[in-house]
Amino acid sequence: MRNLKIIIEYDGAAYHGWQRQPDDITVQQTLEEKIGVITRERIRLTGSGRTDAGVHAIAQAANFKTSSKIAGGNLLRGTNSLLPGDIVIKELTEVDEGFHARYNAKSKVYLYRIFNNKYPPALYRNYSWFIKYPLDIDLIRTAVLQLIGTHDFSSFCAADSNTVDHVREVVDAGVHREENGMIKFFIEADGFLRHMVRNIAGTLIDVGSGKLSPAGFLGIMEARDRRQAGITAPPQGLFLKEVRY
Amino acid sequence: MRNLKIIIEYDGAAYHGWQRQPDDITVQQTLEEKIGVITRERIRLTGSGRTDAGVHAIAQAANFKTSSKIAGGNLLRGTNSLLPGDIVIKELTEVDEGFHARYNAKSKVYLYRIFNNKYPPALYRNYSWFIKYPLDIDLIRTAVLQLIGTHDFSSFCAADSNTVDHVREVVDAGVHREENGMIKFFIEADGFLRHMVRNIAGTLIDVGSGKLSPAGFLGIMEARDRRQAGITAPPQGLFLKEVRY
Repeated sequence: MRNLKIIIEYDGAAYHGWQRQPDDITVQQTLEEKIGVITRERIRLTGSGRTDAGVHAIAQAANFKTSSKIAGGNLLRGTNSLLPGDIVIKELTEVDEGFHARYNAKSKVYLYRIFNNKYPPALYRNYSWFIKYPLDIDLIRTAVLQLIGTHDFSSFCAADSNTVDHVREVVDAGVHREENGMIKFFIEADGFLRHMVRNIAGTLIDVGSGKLSPAGFLGIMEARDRRQAGITAPPQGLFLKEVRY
Repeated sequence: MRNLKIIIEYDGAAYHGWQRQPDDITVQQTLEEKIGVITRERIRLTGSGRTDAGVHAIAQAANFKTSSKIAGGNLLRGTNSLLPGDIVIKELTEVDEGFHARYNAKSKVYLYRIFNNKYPPALYRNYSWFIKYPLDIDLIRTAVLQLIGTHDFSSFCAADSNTVDHVREVVDAGVHREENGMIKFFIEADGFLRHMVRNIAGTLIDVGSGKLSPAGFLGIMEARDRRQAGITAPPQGLFLKEVRY
Protein backbone atom coordinates (compact mmCIF):
# COMPACT_ATOMS: atom_id res chain seq x y z
CA MET A 1 0.00 0.00 0.00
CA ARG A 2 1.20 3.51 -0.82
CA ASN A 3 0.73 6.25 1.76
CA LEU A 4 -0.02 9.61 0.12
CA LYS A 5 -0.02 13.02 1.76
CA ILE A 6 -2.11 15.80 0.28
CA ILE A 7 -2.28 19.54 0.93
CA ILE A 8 -5.75 20.99 0.35
CA GLU A 9 -7.12 24.51 -0.07
CA TYR A 10 -10.83 25.00 0.47
CA ASP A 11 -13.51 27.64 0.76
CA GLY A 12 -15.51 26.39 3.74
CA ALA A 13 -18.70 28.38 3.02
CA ALA A 14 -20.62 25.50 1.43
CA TYR A 15 -19.43 22.73 3.77
CA HIS A 16 -20.35 21.43 7.17
CA GLY A 17 -16.69 21.49 8.16
CA TRP A 18 -13.88 19.09 7.38
CA GLN A 19 -14.97 15.92 9.16
CA ARG A 20 -17.26 13.34 7.53
CA GLN A 21 -20.85 13.57 8.87
CA PRO A 22 -23.76 11.18 8.38
CA ASP A 23 -26.16 13.76 6.91
CA ASP A 24 -24.16 16.80 5.83
CA ILE A 25 -21.74 17.51 3.02
CA THR A 26 -18.20 17.90 4.31
CA VAL A 27 -14.80 18.54 2.75
CA GLN A 28 -13.40 15.17 3.83
CA GLN A 29 -16.29 13.25 2.31
CA THR A 30 -16.12 15.21 -0.96
CA LEU A 31 -12.39 14.51 -1.28
CA GLU A 32 -12.79 10.80 -0.40
CA GLU A 33 -15.47 10.37 -3.06
CA LYS A 34 -13.49 12.05 -5.85
CA ILE A 35 -10.15 10.39 -5.01
CA GLY A 36 -12.10 7.12 -4.88
CA VAL A 37 -13.39 7.63 -8.41
CA ILE A 38 -9.83 8.04 -9.71
CA THR A 39 -8.29 5.18 -7.69
CA ARG A 40 -11.39 2.94 -7.96
CA GLU A 41 -11.13 2.21 -4.25
CA ARG A 42 -12.95 3.18 -1.09
CA ILE A 43 -10.71 5.95 0.28
CA ARG A 44 -10.44 7.01 3.93
CA LEU A 45 -8.63 10.26 4.56
CA THR A 46 -6.85 11.08 7.80
CA GLY A 47 -6.93 14.85 8.25
CA SER A 48 -4.54 16.82 10.45
CA GLY A 49 -7.64 17.74 12.44
CA ARG A 50 -11.15 19.11 12.03
CA THR A 51 -12.21 22.52 10.88
CA ASP A 52 -15.66 23.81 11.82
CA ALA A 53 -18.52 24.49 9.42
CA GLY A 54 -17.74 27.57 7.32
CA VAL A 55 -14.03 27.70 8.21
CA HIS A 56 -11.58 27.93 5.30
CA ALA A 57 -8.22 26.27 4.69
CA ILE A 58 -5.25 27.67 2.80
CA ALA A 59 -3.32 24.45 3.43
CA GLN A 60 -5.06 21.64 5.29
CA ALA A 61 -3.03 18.38 5.33
CA ALA A 62 -4.27 14.79 5.14
CA ASN A 63 -3.04 11.35 4.16
CA PHE A 64 -4.56 8.17 2.74
CA LYS A 65 -3.54 4.65 1.86
CA THR A 66 -4.04 3.30 -1.64
CA SER A 67 -3.17 0.25 -3.75
CA SER A 68 -3.54 2.31 -6.90
CA LYS A 69 -0.48 2.56 -9.12
CA ILE A 70 -1.54 5.82 -10.75
CA ALA A 71 1.33 8.34 -10.79
CA GLY A 72 1.01 11.09 -8.17
CA GLY A 73 0.72 13.94 -10.67
CA ASN A 74 -2.06 12.17 -12.56
CA LEU A 75 -3.90 11.35 -9.36
CA LEU A 76 -3.72 15.01 -8.28
CA ARG A 77 -4.86 16.38 -11.64
CA GLY A 78 -7.55 13.73 -12.09
CA THR A 79 -9.03 14.39 -8.66
CA ASN A 80 -8.91 18.17 -9.11
CA SER A 81 -10.78 17.80 -12.40
CA LEU A 82 -13.65 16.10 -10.52
CA LEU A 83 -13.68 18.31 -7.43
CA PRO A 84 -15.97 21.37 -7.19
CA GLY A 85 -14.14 24.70 -7.58
CA ASP A 86 -14.14 25.40 -3.84
CA ILE A 87 -11.84 22.45 -3.00
CA VAL A 88 -8.39 22.03 -4.58
CA ILE A 89 -5.55 19.60 -3.91
CA LYS A 90 -2.38 21.74 -4.10
CA GLU A 91 0.20 19.04 -3.48
CA LEU A 92 0.36 15.26 -3.43
CA THR A 93 3.46 13.43 -2.21
CA GLU A 94 4.42 9.87 -1.38
CA VAL A 95 5.25 9.52 2.33
CA ASP A 96 6.53 6.79 4.68
CA GLU A 97 4.10 4.01 5.54
CA GLY A 98 3.98 5.28 9.13
CA PHE A 99 3.15 8.91 8.36
CA HIS A 100 -0.08 10.04 10.06
CA ALA A 101 -1.44 13.51 9.25
CA ARG A 102 -2.80 14.03 12.76
CA TYR A 103 -0.27 12.34 15.06
CA ASN A 104 2.80 13.60 13.20
CA ALA A 105 1.72 17.26 13.03
CA LYS A 106 4.24 19.33 15.02
CA SER A 107 2.23 22.55 14.87
CA LYS A 108 -0.57 24.30 13.04
CA VAL A 109 -0.94 27.92 12.01
CA TYR A 110 -4.33 29.62 11.96
CA LEU A 111 -5.17 33.04 10.55
CA TYR A 112 -8.17 35.11 11.64
CA ARG A 113 -9.23 38.14 9.56
CA ILE A 114 -11.19 41.05 11.04
CA PHE A 115 -12.39 43.80 8.67
CA ASN A 116 -12.37 46.92 10.84
CA ASN A 117 -13.92 49.83 9.06
CA LYS A 118 -16.99 52.06 9.09
CA TYR A 119 -18.55 50.14 6.20
CA PRO A 120 -18.84 46.37 5.71
CA PRO A 121 -16.66 44.61 3.13
CA ALA A 122 -18.47 43.73 -0.12
CA LEU A 123 -15.51 41.85 -1.57
CA TYR A 124 -14.34 40.15 1.65
CA ARG A 125 -17.76 39.51 3.19
CA ASN A 126 -17.29 35.74 3.11
CA TYR A 127 -13.65 35.89 4.23
CA SER A 128 -13.60 38.14 7.29
CA TRP A 129 -15.46 39.28 10.41
CA PHE A 130 -16.78 42.81 10.11
CA ILE A 131 -16.28 45.03 13.17
CA LYS A 132 -17.64 48.54 12.82
CA TYR A 133 -16.30 50.28 15.91
CA PRO A 134 -12.61 51.27 15.96
CA LEU A 135 -10.14 48.72 17.30
CA ASP A 136 -6.80 49.68 18.82
CA ILE A 137 -4.24 47.43 17.15
CA ASP A 138 -1.55 48.15 19.76
CA LEU A 139 -3.77 46.97 22.62
CA ILE A 140 -4.65 43.84 20.62
CA ARG A 141 -0.95 43.19 19.94
CA THR A 142 -0.09 43.42 23.64
CA ALA A 143 -2.80 40.86 24.41
CA VAL A 144 -1.76 38.58 21.54
CA LEU A 145 1.87 38.40 22.67
CA GLN A 146 0.69 37.10 26.06
CA LEU A 147 -0.61 33.99 24.28
CA ILE A 148 2.90 32.83 23.42
CA GLY A 149 4.16 30.03 25.67
CA THR A 150 2.65 26.98 27.34
CA HIS A 151 -0.72 27.68 28.96
CA ASP A 152 -3.94 26.03 30.02
CA PHE A 153 -6.42 27.35 27.46
CA SER A 154 -9.62 26.19 29.20
CA SER A 155 -10.98 29.75 29.09
CA PHE A 156 -10.93 29.65 25.29
CA CYS A 157 -12.20 26.07 24.85
CA ALA A 158 -15.74 25.34 23.61
CA ALA A 159 -18.00 24.49 26.55
CA ASP A 160 -19.08 21.20 24.93
CA SER A 161 -15.55 19.95 24.26
CA ASN A 162 -14.66 16.49 25.57
CA THR A 163 -10.94 17.17 25.65
CA VAL A 164 -9.43 16.60 29.11
CA ASP A 165 -6.02 18.19 28.64
CA HIS A 166 -6.35 21.90 27.90
CA VAL A 167 -2.64 22.74 27.98
CA ARG A 168 -1.19 23.81 24.63
CA GLU A 169 2.03 25.50 23.56
CA VAL A 170 1.65 28.61 21.44
CA VAL A 171 4.87 28.81 19.45
CA ASP A 172 4.18 32.14 17.76
CA ALA A 173 1.42 34.71 17.47
CA GLY A 174 1.08 38.18 15.99
CA VAL A 175 -1.26 40.72 14.50
CA HIS A 176 -1.06 43.46 11.91
CA ARG A 177 -3.39 45.90 10.25
CA GLU A 178 -3.46 46.46 6.51
CA GLU A 179 -4.13 49.78 4.82
CA ASN A 180 -7.73 48.89 3.94
CA GLY A 181 -8.65 48.13 7.56
CA MET A 182 -8.12 44.36 7.43
CA ILE A 183 -6.64 43.08 10.70
CA LYS A 184 -4.83 39.75 10.41
CA PHE A 185 -4.24 37.75 13.58
CA PHE A 186 -2.16 34.57 13.33
CA ILE A 187 -1.38 31.95 15.92
CA GLU A 188 0.85 28.87 15.72
CA ALA A 189 0.54 26.14 18.38
CA ASP A 190 1.28 22.47 18.87
CA GLY A 191 -2.47 21.89 19.02
CA PHE A 192 -5.76 23.73 19.30
CA LEU A 193 -8.86 23.17 21.41
CA ARG A 194 -12.31 23.31 19.86
CA HIS A 195 -13.23 26.95 18.98
CA MET A 196 -9.97 28.12 20.56
CA VAL A 197 -8.93 30.56 17.83
CA ARG A 198 -12.46 31.91 17.41
CA ASN A 199 -12.88 32.39 21.17
CA ILE A 200 -9.53 34.17 21.36
CA ALA A 201 -10.50 36.38 18.39
CA GLY A 202 -13.84 37.21 20.05
CA THR A 203 -12.03 38.21 23.23
CA LEU A 204 -9.37 40.22 21.35
CA ILE A 205 -12.19 42.39 19.97
CA ASP A 206 -13.04 43.38 23.54
CA VAL A 207 -9.40 44.34 24.06
CA GLY A 208 -9.32 46.37 20.83
CA SER A 209 -12.51 48.23 21.71
CA GLY A 210 -11.16 49.12 25.17
CA LYS A 211 -13.80 47.08 27.01
CA LEU A 212 -11.07 44.77 28.33
CA SER A 213 -7.43 45.63 29.11
CA PRO A 214 -4.53 43.43 27.96
CA ALA A 215 -4.00 42.61 31.66
CA GLY A 216 -7.67 41.64 31.87
CA PHE A 217 -7.16 39.40 28.82
CA LEU A 218 -4.29 37.67 30.64
CA GLY A 219 -6.51 37.34 33.70
CA ILE A 220 -9.18 35.58 31.62
CA MET A 221 -6.60 33.19 30.22
CA GLU A 222 -5.31 32.41 33.71
CA ALA A 223 -8.83 31.93 35.10
CA ARG A 224 -9.28 28.70 33.08
CA ASP A 225 -13.00 29.43 32.93
CA ARG A 226 -14.85 29.58 29.60
CA ARG A 227 -17.55 31.85 31.04
CA GLN A 228 -15.06 34.72 31.39
CA ALA A 229 -13.99 34.97 27.75
CA GLY A 230 -15.68 36.93 24.94
CA ILE A 231 -17.97 35.67 22.19
CA THR A 232 -17.01 33.04 19.62
CA ALA A 233 -15.95 34.91 16.47
CA PRO A 234 -17.79 33.75 13.32
CA PRO A 235 -16.29 30.97 11.17
CA GLN A 236 -15.88 32.85 7.89
CA GLY A 237 -12.93 34.87 9.26
CA LEU A 238 -10.91 31.76 10.12
CA PHE A 239 -8.33 30.06 7.88
CA LEU A 240 -6.20 26.99 8.61
CA LYS A 241 -3.01 28.40 7.10
CA GLU A 242 -0.47 25.62 7.50
CA VAL A 243 0.21 22.28 9.15
CA ARG A 244 3.87 21.80 10.05
CA TYR A 245 5.52 18.36 10.28
CA MET B 1 -30.85 70.27 -4.98
CA ARG B 2 -27.90 68.66 -3.23
CA ASN B 3 -25.29 66.88 -5.34
CA LEU B 4 -23.89 63.83 -3.55
CA LYS B 5 -20.85 61.80 -4.52
CA ILE B 6 -20.59 58.19 -3.43
CA ILE B 7 -17.75 55.65 -3.49
CA ILE B 8 -18.97 52.08 -3.93
CA GLU B 9 -17.37 48.67 -3.45
CA TYR B 10 -19.05 45.72 -5.16
CA ASP B 11 -18.63 42.07 -5.94
CA GLY B 12 -19.69 41.92 -9.58
CA ALA B 13 -20.39 38.16 -9.71
CA ALA B 14 -24.17 38.44 -9.36
CA TYR B 15 -24.66 41.52 -11.55
CA HIS B 16 -24.98 42.26 -15.22
CA GLY B 17 -22.40 45.03 -14.86
CA TRP B 18 -22.74 48.55 -13.54
CA GLN B 19 -25.08 50.14 -16.08
CA ARG B 20 -28.87 49.98 -15.79
CA GLN B 21 -30.38 47.43 -18.22
CA PRO B 22 -34.00 46.83 -19.14
CA ASP B 23 -34.08 43.13 -18.21
CA ASP B 24 -31.06 42.38 -16.03
CA ILE B 25 -30.09 43.22 -12.48
CA THR B 26 -27.25 45.72 -12.39
CA VAL B 27 -25.30 47.53 -9.69
CA GLN B 28 -26.53 50.98 -10.73
CA GLN B 29 -30.18 49.93 -10.63
CA THR B 30 -29.78 48.23 -7.24
CA LEU B 31 -28.20 51.35 -5.76
CA GLU B 32 -30.80 53.67 -7.31
CA GLU B 33 -33.63 51.62 -5.83
CA LYS B 34 -32.22 51.49 -2.31
CA ILE B 35 -31.13 55.16 -2.20
CA GLY B 36 -34.62 55.98 -3.52
CA VAL B 37 -36.24 54.12 -0.61
CA ILE B 38 -34.29 56.25 1.88
CA THR B 39 -34.74 59.60 0.09
CA ARG B 40 -38.31 58.82 -1.10
CA GLU B 41 -37.37 60.06 -4.55
CA ARG B 42 -36.65 58.60 -7.94
CA ILE B 43 -32.84 58.54 -7.99
CA ARG B 44 -30.63 58.60 -11.10
CA LEU B 45 -26.98 57.81 -10.55
CA THR B 46 -24.21 59.08 -12.80
CA GLY B 47 -21.36 56.57 -12.62
CA SER B 48 -17.76 57.31 -13.51
CA GLY B 49 -18.23 54.75 -16.28
CA ARG B 50 -19.49 51.25 -16.89
CA THR B 51 -18.05 48.01 -15.66
CA ASP B 52 -18.85 44.79 -17.52
CA ALA B 53 -20.89 41.88 -16.18
CA GLY B 54 -18.91 40.06 -13.48
CA VAL B 55 -16.30 42.81 -13.01
CA HIS B 56 -15.69 43.97 -9.42
CA ALA B 57 -15.10 47.43 -7.96
CA ILE B 58 -12.99 48.34 -4.97
CA ALA B 59 -13.96 52.00 -5.39
CA GLN B 60 -16.37 52.93 -8.17
CA ALA B 61 -17.51 56.58 -8.02
CA ALA B 62 -20.91 58.06 -8.84
CA ASN B 63 -23.02 61.11 -8.07
CA PHE B 64 -26.73 61.91 -7.78
CA LYS B 65 -28.98 64.88 -7.16
CA THR B 66 -31.45 64.86 -4.31
CA SER B 67 -33.87 67.21 -2.56
CA SER B 68 -33.72 65.08 0.56
CA LYS B 69 -32.46 66.80 3.69
CA ILE B 70 -31.31 63.58 5.36
CA ALA B 71 -27.79 63.96 6.78
CA GLY B 72 -25.09 62.29 4.68
CA GLY B 73 -24.05 59.79 7.35
CA ASN B 74 -27.64 58.65 7.87
CA LEU B 75 -28.23 58.37 4.13
CA LEU B 76 -25.09 56.22 3.79
CA ARG B 77 -25.95 53.94 6.72
CA GLY B 78 -29.62 53.71 5.77
CA THR B 79 -28.83 52.72 2.19
CA ASN B 80 -26.18 50.21 3.26
CA SER B 81 -28.71 48.59 5.61
CA LEU B 82 -30.99 47.94 2.60
CA LEU B 83 -28.33 46.91 0.08
CA PRO B 84 -27.38 43.25 -0.44
CA GLY B 85 -24.01 42.28 1.09
CA ASP B 86 -22.21 42.40 -2.26
CA ILE B 87 -22.70 46.17 -2.72
CA VAL B 88 -21.49 48.70 -0.12
CA ILE B 89 -21.33 52.49 -0.15
CA LYS B 90 -17.97 53.32 1.46
CA GLU B 91 -18.16 57.11 1.36
CA LEU B 92 -20.81 59.77 0.75
CA THR B 93 -19.84 63.42 0.41
CA GLU B 94 -21.58 66.64 -0.60
CA VAL B 95 -20.02 68.05 -3.79
CA ASP B 96 -20.42 71.18 -5.93
CA GLU B 97 -23.56 71.42 -8.02
CA GLY B 98 -21.48 71.05 -11.19
CA PHE B 99 -19.62 67.87 -10.19
CA HIS B 100 -20.14 65.06 -12.70
CA ALA B 101 -18.71 61.62 -11.87
CA ARG B 102 -17.92 60.84 -15.49
CA TYR B 103 -16.84 64.17 -17.02
CA ASN B 104 -14.75 65.24 -14.03
CA ALA B 105 -12.81 61.99 -13.67
CA LYS B 106 -9.12 62.73 -14.32
CA SER B 107 -8.05 59.10 -14.35
CA LYS B 108 -9.08 55.60 -13.34
CA VAL B 109 -7.04 52.76 -11.93
CA TYR B 110 -7.84 49.15 -12.79
CA LEU B 111 -6.35 46.04 -11.24
CA TYR B 112 -6.26 42.64 -12.96
CA ARG B 113 -5.42 39.52 -10.93
CA ILE B 114 -3.96 36.37 -12.50
CA PHE B 115 -3.51 33.30 -10.29
CA ASN B 116 -0.48 31.56 -11.79
CA ASN B 117 0.09 28.20 -10.22
CA LYS B 118 -0.11 24.49 -10.97
CA TYR B 119 -3.43 24.19 -9.15
CA PRO B 120 -6.50 26.43 -9.40
CA PRO B 121 -7.38 28.79 -6.53
CA ALA B 122 -10.21 27.56 -4.30
CA LEU B 123 -10.30 30.73 -2.21
CA TYR B 124 -9.74 33.22 -5.06
CA ARG B 125 -11.69 31.41 -7.77
CA ASN B 126 -14.19 34.28 -8.13
CA TYR B 127 -11.53 36.99 -7.88
CA SER B 128 -8.80 35.99 -10.33
CA TRP B 129 -8.02 34.37 -13.68
CA PHE B 130 -6.34 30.99 -13.29
CA ILE B 131 -3.37 30.36 -15.60
CA LYS B 132 -1.76 26.97 -15.19
CA TYR B 133 1.39 27.24 -17.32
CA PRO B 134 4.31 29.25 -15.92
CA LEU B 135 4.40 32.97 -16.71
CA ASP B 136 7.62 34.99 -16.79
CA ILE B 137 6.92 38.09 -14.71
CA ASP B 138 9.96 39.97 -16.08
CA LEU B 139 8.77 39.59 -19.68
CA ILE B 140 5.30 40.74 -18.64
CA ARG B 141 6.77 43.75 -16.83
CA THR B 142 8.74 44.80 -19.92
CA ALA B 143 5.55 44.67 -21.99
CA VAL B 144 3.51 46.51 -19.34
CA LEU B 145 5.94 49.44 -19.15
CA GLN B 146 5.46 49.98 -22.91
CA LEU B 147 1.83 50.85 -22.21
CA ILE B 148 2.79 54.05 -20.38
CA GLY B 149 2.27 57.18 -22.48
CA THR B 150 -0.26 58.39 -25.05
CA HIS B 151 -1.19 55.72 -27.58
CA ASP B 152 -3.93 54.66 -29.94
CA PHE B 153 -5.34 51.56 -28.20
CA SER B 154 -7.48 50.29 -31.12
CA SER B 155 -5.77 46.89 -30.92
CA PHE B 156 -7.12 46.41 -27.40
CA CYS B 157 -10.62 47.81 -28.01
CA ALA B 158 -13.68 45.55 -28.19
CA ALA B 159 -14.64 44.92 -31.81
CA ASP B 160 -18.22 46.09 -31.20
CA SER B 161 -17.26 49.38 -29.57
CA ASN B 162 -18.77 52.56 -31.05
CA THR B 163 -16.02 54.82 -29.72
CA VAL B 164 -14.35 56.83 -32.48
CA ASP B 165 -11.33 58.17 -30.61
CA HIS B 166 -9.09 55.34 -29.47
CA VAL B 167 -6.25 57.48 -28.11
CA ARG B 168 -5.77 57.29 -24.34
CA GLU B 169 -3.00 58.34 -21.99
CA VAL B 170 -1.71 55.64 -19.67
CA VAL B 171 -0.34 57.55 -16.67
CA ASP B 172 1.07 54.55 -14.83
CA ALA B 173 1.18 50.77 -15.09
CA GLY B 174 2.97 47.98 -13.30
CA VAL B 175 2.91 44.35 -12.32
CA HIS B 176 4.11 42.25 -9.41
CA ARG B 177 3.91 38.66 -8.30
CA GLU B 178 3.00 37.66 -4.76
CA GLU B 179 4.41 34.68 -2.92
CA ASN B 180 1.31 32.53 -3.49
CA GLY B 181 1.48 32.93 -7.28
CA MET B 182 -0.98 35.82 -7.58
CA ILE B 183 0.10 38.26 -10.30
CA LYS B 184 -1.33 41.76 -9.92
CA PHE B 185 -1.35 44.03 -12.96
CA PHE B 186 -2.50 47.63 -12.52
CA ILE B 187 -3.04 50.36 -15.07
CA GLU B 188 -3.99 54.00 -14.60
CA ALA B 189 -5.24 56.00 -17.59
CA ASP B 190 -7.28 59.08 -18.38
CA GLY B 191 -9.87 56.79 -19.93
CA PHE B 192 -10.41 53.21 -21.02
CA LEU B 193 -11.93 51.66 -24.13
CA ARG B 194 -14.42 48.82 -23.87
CA HIS B 195 -12.64 45.58 -22.80
CA MET B 196 -9.29 47.40 -22.95
CA VAL B 197 -7.85 46.10 -19.67
CA ARG B 198 -9.12 42.57 -20.28
CA ASN B 199 -7.72 42.53 -23.83
CA ILE B 200 -4.38 43.80 -22.56
CA ALA B 201 -4.38 41.15 -19.80
CA GLY B 202 -5.20 38.43 -22.35
CA THR B 203 -2.27 39.56 -24.52
CA LEU B 204 0.11 39.86 -21.53
CA ILE B 205 -0.49 36.15 -20.89
CA ASP B 206 0.98 35.43 -24.33
CA VAL B 207 4.02 37.50 -23.39
CA GLY B 208 4.41 35.70 -20.06
CA SER B 209 4.18 32.28 -21.67
CA GLY B 210 6.82 33.19 -24.26
CA LYS B 211 4.42 32.94 -27.20
CA LEU B 212 4.81 36.67 -27.84
CA SER B 213 7.88 38.85 -27.17
CA PRO B 214 7.61 42.26 -25.44
CA ALA B 215 8.61 43.76 -28.82
CA GLY B 216 5.79 41.77 -30.43
CA PHE B 217 3.42 43.17 -27.80
CA LEU B 218 4.50 46.71 -28.76
CA GLY B 219 3.99 45.79 -32.42
CA ILE B 220 0.43 44.70 -31.70
CA MET B 221 -0.26 47.96 -29.89
CA GLU B 222 1.14 49.95 -32.80
CA ALA B 223 -0.80 47.93 -35.40
CA ARG B 224 -4.12 49.42 -34.17
CA ASP B 225 -5.86 46.23 -35.21
CA ARG B 226 -8.00 44.26 -32.75
CA ARG B 227 -7.46 41.00 -34.63
CA GLN B 228 -3.78 40.95 -33.65
CA ALA B 229 -4.24 41.01 -29.87
CA GLY B 230 -4.78 38.03 -27.55
CA ILE B 231 -8.00 36.81 -26.01
CA THR B 232 -10.22 38.85 -23.72
CA ALA B 233 -9.35 37.88 -20.14
CA PRO B 234 -12.39 36.83 -18.07
CA PRO B 235 -14.25 39.46 -16.01
CA GLN B 236 -13.79 37.97 -12.52
CA GLY B 237 -10.09 38.97 -12.45
CA LEU B 238 -10.85 42.66 -13.04
CA PHE B 239 -11.32 45.32 -10.35
CA LEU B 240 -12.02 49.03 -10.78
CA LYS B 241 -9.63 50.15 -8.04
CA GLU B 242 -9.99 53.93 -7.97
CA VAL B 243 -11.42 56.91 -9.81
CA ARG B 244 -9.29 60.03 -9.44
CA TYR B 245 -10.71 63.59 -9.63
